[in-house]
Amino acid sequence: MDLLKGDERLDYLLAENLRIIQSPTVFSFSLDAVLLANFSYIPKHKGKIIDLCSGNGIIPLLLSKRTNVKIQAVEIQERLVDMAQRSINYNGLQPQIELIHGDIRGLYKEVGHSRYDVVTCNPPYFTTDDRDKINDNEHLAIARHEILCTLEDAIQSASLLLKQGGKAAFVHRPGRLLDILFLMRKYRLEPKRLRFVYPKEGREANTILIEGAKDAKPDMKVLPPLYVFDQKNQYSKEVHEILYGKE
Amino acid sequence: MDLLKGDERLDYLLAENLRIIQSPTVFSFSLDAVLLANFSYIPKHKGKIIDLCSGNGIIPLLLSKRTNVKIQAVEIQERLVDMAQRSINYNGLQPQIELIHGDIRGLYKEVGHSRYDVVTCNPPYFTTDDRDKINDNEHLAIARHEILCTLEDAIQSASLLLKQGGKAAFVHRPGRLLDILFLMRKYRLEPKRLRFVYPKEGREANTILIEGAKDAKPDMKVLPPLYVFDQKNQYSKEVHEILYGKE
Repeated sequence: MDLLKGDERLDYLLAENLRIIQSPTVFSFSLDAVLLANFSYIPKHKGKIIDLCSGNGIIPLLLSKRTNVKIQAVEIQERLVDMAQRSINYNGLQPQIELIHGDIRGLYKEVGHSRYDVVTCNPPYFTTDDRDKINDNEHLAIARHEILCTLEDAIQSASLLLKQGGKAAFVHRPGRLLDILFLMRKYRLEPKRLRFVYPKEGREANTILIEGAKDAKPDMKVLPPLYVFDQKNQYSKEVHEILYGKE
Repeated sequence: MDLLKGDERLDYLLAENLRIIQSPTVFSFSLDAVLLANFSYIPKHKGKIIDLCSGNGIIPLLLSKRTNVKIQAVEIQERLVDMAQRSINYNGLQPQIELIHGDIRGLYKEVGHSRYDVVTCNPPYFTTDDRDKINDNEHLAIARHEILCTLEDAIQSASLLLKQGGKAAFVHRPGRLLDILFLMRKYRLEPKRLRFVYPKEGREANTILIEGAKDAKPDMKVLPPLYVFDQKNQYSKEVHEILYGKE
């Protein structure tokens, strides 16, 4: 089997000394996924972890460096599962990361109800209200728009998979913050930690990181802001360390 | 009538060249009220403005410097209405600020339904769940705890007073953010602007400023963070300017 197909390339994840297969026409990970992998609570030695809407596997790859626990990852697009599997193989992570080709809706019937300690999910951000804006490229459209997975699907699925007290972390846009908070409460994922990501100082937030715990009591902390760029338009120290490692 | 009673003192509002009567045993305004007065949208020349849970009148006093519009202010404690009236008189603001001694619950029956452009409110922050923590001093207890005014009372009252499209601004604690967002939607005040206040860089937020618009469409912006202190524990430039004016 060839390592790369079509316009794929083998990119570096420098901080983790990993490589990942990407493609501009199929799927490339975003900074948001990297920030989510960094933000989420992850048990080091024990527990069950699953990543939903996993794309090319960026999140399980990054999480593998934070834990010895096995990680499952679910992706609905066969083309992306194939791409993710080749990245996992290339990094020799087959013993730790298991890919599941499937739909997160009803996933609990396959992998078990209330059995997970951690769920991570970087879901499609855009609703399908505005059909005009949906990419003609099917792979990109499914990854970006709520075609096969709505925000409610993701939150409901996470809740069904989690044990009591288990944690679910999501990344999304501030414009959907109210929806996320409402849906998390609706599905018993009490929001506990919220962090806003700002492109730089003085600008409005453009990303949110949020973690909830199943059936936990209400008490949400708002963490210090995360700036992506500094005033010189270089990555901020924090983001630089997340991407390239501590010096 | 004496200007000051008991342990009252006449404090400066330096940025606005105003004076305000305060008392450690009756009521002293907090930085939160000053930040809310600065955060809220205020029409300059036309419209109707009302401040709920007005305490010693700090918010209408500050708003008077941002607008020519008449400002009403409602306070339930007679002792505080008296204190606020003396501050208004001292500053010669009787033509602009009208105090109402009354309860915000049912207030719309007195001042009119759906007639206001702006409502501001710095409500009591603490629930009455934990009776032990409630101050024995009745004035302070009523100002700080939800004894005579719950968060829901404040949001419902604001909604009843506002015109369609009218704006309500609140200040509160991050631990109540979900409650605020839920209640605002419940009472048709769609959250539009949210700003977190952090004591200093690297710390969790300890205050939220939020503004909603009645019957507006969902689209909330998360503004840049506001830091109170800098790394030298001096007021940040922004807070210094709010408190002492621009140099």
